[in-house]
Amino acid sequence: MGLFDLKAKVYKPVNEVNLGADSDETYIHANVKAPRMAGILVKVFAWLLELRLVGAFIVEILKRNNLVHKLVSFANVSEPPLFTPTHAWEDNVEQQVCLIKSNSTPADRVAQAIDCLPERKENAINNSGSNFHRWTIKDYYRAYCSRGTTPLLVAKRFLAAVKESSEPNLNMSFFINYDAEDILRQAEESTLRHERGTPISVLDGVLVAVKDEIDCMPYPTTGGTKWLHKARSCTEDAYCVRQLRSCGAILVGKTNMHEIGAGTSGINPHYGSTRNPYNIDKISGGSSSGSAAVVCAGLCPVALGVDGGGSVRIPASLCGVVGFKPTFGRVSHSGILPLNWTVGMAGILAGTIEDALITYAAICHHIPFRQPTPSLPEITFPLLTSTNSISNIKFAKYGKWFNDSTEDVRSCCENALDMLCKHHGWKTVEVTVPEIEEMRLAHYATIASECTAALAPHLAKLDFAEMGWDVRVAYQVYRSFHSREYLNAQRIRNRQMHFHREIFKTADVIVTPTTGVTAYPLQSDALNTGELDYINGAALVRFMIAGNFLGLPTVTVMVGCNKEGMPIGLQFIGRPWSEATLLHLAYAMQALCSKSYKKPMVFYDLLKKEELLPRNGMTKA
Amino acid sequence: MGLFDLKAKVYKPVNEVNLGADSDETYIHANVKAPRMAGILVKVFAWLLELRLVGAFIVEILKRNNLVHKLVSFANVSEPPLFTPTHAWEDNVEQQVCLIKSNSTPADRVAQAIDCLPERKENAINNSGSNFHRWTIKDYYRAYCSRGTTPLLVAKRFLAAVKESSEPNLNMSFFINYDAEDILRQAEESTLRHERGTPISVLDGVLVAVKDEIDCMPYPTTGGTKWLHKARSCTEDAYCVRQLRSCGAILVGKTNMHEIGAGTSGINPHYGSTRNPYNIDKISGGSSSGSAAVVCAGLCPVALGVDGGGSVRIPASLCGVVGFKPTFGRVSHSGILPLNWTVGMAGILAGTIEDALITYAAICHHIPFRQPTPSLPEITFPLLTSTNSISNIKFAKYGKWFNDSTEDVRSCCENALDMLCKHHGWKTVEVTVPEIEEMRLAHYATIASECTAALAPHLAKLDFAEMGWDVRVAYQVYRSFHSREYLNAQRIRNRQMHFHREIFKTADVIVTPTTGVTAYPLQSDALNTGELDYINGAALVRFMIAGNFLGLPTVTVMVGCNKEGMPIGLQFIGRPWSEATLLHLAYAMQALCSKSYKKPMVFYDLLKKEELLPRNGMTKA
Repeated sequence: MGLFDLKAKVYKPVNEVNLGADSDETYIHANVKAPRMAGILVKVFAWLLELRLVGAFIVEILKRNNLVHKLVSFANVSEPPLFTPTHAWEDNVEQQVCLIKSNSTPADRVAQAIDCLPERKENAINNSGSNFHRWTIKDYYRAYCSRGTTPLLVAKRFLAAVKESSEPNLNMSFFINYDAEDILRQAEESTLRHERGTPISVLDGVLVAVKDEIDCMPYPTTGGTKWLHKARSCTEDAYCVRQLRSCGAILVGKTNMHEIGAGTSGINPHYGSTRNPYNIDKISGGSSSGSAAVVCAGLCPVALGVDGGGSVRIPASLCGVVGFKPTFGRVSHSGILPLNWTVGMAGILAGTIEDALITYAAICHHIPFRQPTPSLPEITFPLLTSTNSISNIKFAKYGKWFNDSTEDVRSCCENALDMLCKHHGWKTVEVTVPEIEEMRLAHYATIASECTAALAPHLAKLDFAEMGWDVRVAYQVYRSFHSREYLNAQRIRNRQMHFHREIFKTADVIVTPTTGVTAYPLQSDALNTGELDYINGAALVRFMIAGNFLGLPTVTVMVGCNKEGMPIGLQFIGRPWSEATLLHLAYAMQALCSKSYKKPMVFYDLLKKEELLPRNGMTKA
Repeated sequence: MGLFDLKAKVYKPVNEVNLGADSDETYIHANVKAPRMAGILVKVFAWLLELRLVGAFIVEILKRNNLVHKLVSFANVSEPPLFTPTHAWEDNVEQQVCLIKSNSTPADRVAQAIDCLPERKENAINNSGSNFHRWTIKDYYRAYCSRGTTPLLVAKRFLAAVKESSEPNLNMSFFINYDAEDILRQAEESTLRHERGTPISVLDGVLVAVKDEIDCMPYPTTGGTKWLHKARSCTEDAYCVRQLRSCGAILVGKTNMHEIGAGTSGINPHYGSTRNPYNIDKISGGSSSGSAAVVCAGLCPVALGVDGGGSVRIPASLCGVVGFKPTFGRVSHSGILPLNWTVGMAGILAGTIEDALITYAAICHHIPFRQPTPSLPEITFPLLTSTNSISNIKFAKYGKWFNDSTEDVRSCCENALDMLCKHHGWKTVEVTVPEIEEMRLAHYATIASECTAALAPHLAKLDFAEMGWDVRVAYQVYRSFHSREYLNAQRIRNRQMHFHREIFKTADVIVTPTTGVTAYPLQSDALNTGELDYINGAALVRFMIAGNFLGLPTVTVMVGCNKEGMPIGLQFIGRPWSEATLLHLAYAMQALCSKSYKKPMVFYDLLKKEELLPRNGMTKA
């Protein structure tokens, strides 16, 4: 190793690691040694890295200084590798769920999800002036059925709102592509169905936006790049998009994202940086930046994202919406850009837990999409009418980790959790989740290697000038991983799978803040070059990794704001296949916190309150 | 890529590949561009490769010239990676099998295996003078039960024979370690059990040798090296050894092997090169060289090996014994040196198919050893009493591949197959197994990467002078693989899994010669340095890879000899979990060919014919 001699970590056998509150496991604070760079600095750095030998040398120095060598590359791990986060079915005993038949259609499942929802009380709508309320799927459906409005009218309002949001004074950069004609055509068809009294499902006529990493006709799938859609054409809807379409949803275009998902800020030099609707001078978070922001801004009740390293949950948290990533394998990956194979999955961004459930009902999947996998367990939905009767929930909390966040995040999450436990008589147990920084770096080596392998044939032909500067830098690091480093990362995955299995014997969910920081400023020097901010980046992904590397289901729900009015999210990480429990808990959390939600600075009301009220004596829905 | 620009292969989608006889898929003959090296040449080459930059440069040239870059590293594959050769259970309809209960003990299963065997006719023993016959497990058992001899007497003969085989005139180098005291103690205990009339199973008192890659007390596990046992101590029997021991088998020591399994010749500069009992001037094949040779030479009826790239089947074929590697996961890997994780598995070397079945019964395993795997299907044994009534078997044969072997191998295998089909009314169907050379290189990238990752912590501390020269060269290539190359190799695994699944829709087994060449001369310049002979190496592994990379069950059985008297093996590759069918077919093949088996040049009769006959009126067994 010569220059790179270092004392690599010798991992102790998993059975010797104490996972209790009294553990002597060291919590390693993310040890990021890299200054923020933007503008000319990023360019110079990219140029240096692209010099063959010099670049390779710098990358190794970076990997050494940031503990990649010590904790992953040269570490001594005795466990064999675990390559995919697939979970065998276990007999989860979940409370208050309804079991979904395996041969049900998306529309059938949506109907069953509706049966799981409590009726909104009329006064909730009437009082919605007093606290902030986003229109939900059921609101839209009610308005369409009551002839208060039509999908066509809503689509037109949507198009006007998107246009307004793109004006120079806002410059929100929500979408990479949307086709007014295609949207209006879908809206007309839906309007016709509603007029005939034959809507397909409660999603009929509901606007849904799709991250530009997911195939959705008639758009190219850019992945936030200027080149990927030229190398790989989109010829049909992704599986999850097809399912939504079959429910009557209106697909309103492709949302902005961090280029190839290689960052968490949502800063995109090609299509503009998505701005946070709560404060347009702040980042939206990423990589599913546009999907989170459009839901936040009221343009759609739900949107699809893809989460390979927190890419759904981070922007959801920063924009104050719900972010939900089910268990690995529960949503088909078919038709999603193959940027990685073992960590990423489609996820849902929604204004409320109820809407996340309805969307989940539409897109969830009985058949494992990556062979060979154990056959998937039955799908369960939470009976949200009965959340209050759920008892004996235990939250696992690792204090050192939970508190590795800014003061505003920590205290807000702490208070929310206390309130939740007090209200329901639930408990918190202190645990130790060991090797968190190790897992972050192992996940990084994994996603970097897989992204490189997936894109290599395209990248070989690519003129680097077509890539953003920050992604050029990222790519030089991504491509540096050796097979030994990849395999060691998978051995760390195996350890973590063991640790989490053990922790779930003592608790139902692990609770963390969603991100270590709230949305930070979008600086003007970053707009054209992207920025490198690995310190903020590490704070954003700090609590994300188990959801991807271990394929565990996770959900984030907004629990408050900091003094600047920026949203703060709390995350639940669940047992494999425990989506129903997760949604129950998030729903309970939302019920306690939503009264304090504030209206974003940029917000569009695509419905009027009076449109919900029945006209012509229609009482449907 | 600069210097390494090349036209990398663009793989067509799997569904467009024609697997029929009329396919236009190109068969790529192994394009090995490397001269044989031994002695001082290997040393110089190793020194060059160990120079950091020069070495890296040479390795890349080697990988380019040998098509690794074109077919794997930079290839354009659209399929996602498949990381492990795990097979979900499929409802194989196998003929004439007996189903084994999942809670049965090894001894229970051995008893059930015995029930599947035909009774040997007395005249078979009496006539064994006319054609060559190795003593079988049942022969030993019969002799012990009839008081014709005792395990202790056999163990003493064994020790004398091993001593004789180690004399300078033979220098067979069968064993790395054997402990006379430990062997005699086991033999005394077994003798006592037989005297009391309470043998544990038919394996009680039967000698079994174990490859020095498998933990077996009280020996260190050297892996054929001078250093690995110092870095990793052996503290208990491997799972498969424990199972054999629980049946009463006598573990007679650790057989020689190619250093860390990194070669197929069995030339080991540290412990001597195992010589082929059919001709001591020829190689035994490897890496399970000693295990094949001891069975060949009559020292044990069965031995254990490990097969990561043909390491059981190659020496079995070259030494004219049975080599059997079950489906990936059917034998526990616990206690076997972790030299790789996704290709290697324990296998059986035996004198006859019947003995392979008995040993399989002892070591097979119901519980998947690598989580998460689909639960294993029930174990089935072949009712060898009914092999003649099996009908409608179809052998898939790919002519271009089958014929990519020397004339003696080709014609012998061809004749044997014809004879088998004619005798039983079975059929051969011509198919195309595409991308065979691609699979060989992808498997190489995989095993090389995994071996490097597995040994890295030890190798970092190792003085290279402790390694053989050929392995030093191999290691420099092994360690060169990038994560992108590893991942591309797994994508090729996915393609091949698809191709084989399709082929098994039209045929029951794939039939090939076991090796492309017979045992070649052991040259004296190789004895101290090892040799690099990638051309012969490629011919030895040509038909091996599906058994490892795809985890398919395979068996090799001797079907004849060439003019020099060197054995020739025929291989059957089966559907996942079709061990029973494989053993049926191999048994049928053996029945037709065994009459022509010749006695090896080096052979020890540890039983005398008269010892099989009952004394004192004992008629047990």
